[in-house]
Amino acid sequence: MTGLGKVYLVGAGPGAQDLITVRGARLLAQAEVVLHDALVAPEMLELCPRAELIDVGKRYGKQSARQDWINQQLVDCASKFAVVVRLKGGDPMLFGRADEELRALEEAGIAVEIVPGITTALAAAAASQNPLTRRGIARSVAFFTSSTAPEHADPMPVTPDADTLVQYMGGREAIATAKRLLGTGRAAGTPVVVVENCSRLDQRIMRLDLAALAEGLTATHGPVLVMIGEALRLRETQRDDSAGT
Amino acid sequence: MTGLGKVYLVGAGPGAQDLITVRGARLLAQAEVVLHDALVAPEMLELCPRAELIDVGKRYGKQSARQDWINQQLVDCASKFAVVVRLKGGDPMLFGRADEELRALEEAGIAVEIVPGITTALAAAAASQNPLTRRGIARSVAFFTSSTAPEHADPMPVTPDADTLVQYMGGREAIATAKRLLGTGRAAGTPVVVVENCSRLDQRIMRLDLAALAEGLTATHGPVLVMIGEALRLRETQRDDSAGT
Repeated sequence: MTGLGKVYLVGAGPGAQDLITVRGARLLAQAEVVLHDALVAPEMLELCPRAELIDVGKRYGKQSARQDWINQQLVDCASKFAVVVRLKGGDPMLFGRADEELRALEEAGIAVEIVPGITTALAAAAASQNPLTRRGIARSVAFFTSSTAPEHADPMPVTPDADTLVQYMGGREAIATAKRLLGTGRAAGTPVVVVENCSRLDQRIMRLDLAALAEGLTATHGPVLVMIGEALRLRETQRDDSAGT
Repeated sequence: MTGLGKVYLVGAGPGAQDLITVRGARLLAQAEVVLHDALVAPEMLELCPRAELIDVGKRYGKQSARQDWINQQLVDCASKFAVVVRLKGGDPMLFGRADEELRALEEAGIAVEIVPGITTALAAAAASQNPLTRRGIARSVAFFTSSTAPEHADPMPVTPDADTLVQYMGGREAIATAKRLLGTGRAAGTPVVVVENCSRLDQRIMRLDLAALAEGLTATHGPVLVMIGEALRLRETQRDDSAGT
């Protein structure tokens, strides 16, 4: 085979069509084939009208496409097309299993370029208008997830230690996080901001505190991001934009 | 005064002109005035040819523009212009003192919208092709900075605890971080990736390990980002792209 194509791992950002980077949007317009996740918002795919679309979404449980099948698809596409885009929700290098795809492409001798994307935590902070760091109050922030997949080898819950904590896919898991944090001495009144469907039309912001989070989250429908920390306290000048809990 | 303008806090991203979001680029094209930091790359300002430019860059030490002067500039601009862009390097909600600017704008009754940007850590991970999280190896990442300004109230060095650590403005400060991490039991061979001038033409990637970082970093010229953790280990299939240490 002559002339393998190039694979671009592109971050789609949080969901809104115009929160992808200019570079990412240009590559989508040029792409001959786009392999996308279930987490990628449908409106993002309007940016690649020329491309063949391959849905490689991994929903947990039934009908999961296995990672090695995705890897093989990527390699196959690079032998048929010059411009292959692998579109991932958020940023490709955070919670995206990029390592496994990069390894497969390297083994096949295929060139890869990575285009970063807005990770949901930053879009959620923008939406709530509360920064993740604040001078004199918070100068570190940690992003984490409790369980990434059912087959995950490590069943131990681990909560990182930083001034501000952001838990991805943090629905029910965040309740356990709140209990652990209270157990290690975080104040019950520590502000919590939950953002559902971040940057989409049905985005919802909920404000509560750590004690209330430990008691449970009311039903949410879409992916939620849970942000915890003193930096997130509503300013006295700030309008409360939350939809309640 | 009738009809105050709106202020957009926009993340410029790491430096490359096309790593701003589509929304951010559109707002720059519409802006009547742009207030920008010293950290914003000059090429970003080509995106706002119509706008009056105000450099509010805060270099540490001499000629620093004080934050309250910046706040006043923002309020003044909103009384004169309909579309005011406050352009910040990276993402506005991380290490950007957004809280103080938001407070001043809220007090003046000025509407604000925040547009997230690619924070340098994500661009650095993309450039090095090493993800910040890896299944079974790292599922949390912390971003931090040791000292944000000379007037910082808290002189204590604080290193957050997460699988992957990313230190912003981490030149000499990162040496102290490495010593602290070795003292708390992190392996001497833990991979370290240092990215200088991330996403710019003169970007440089250096690969070392935690023990070597504790010994010192050779001279760097631009802003450096220091990433530490097992997730950053060079894959056996990966080409070494580093410029040495």
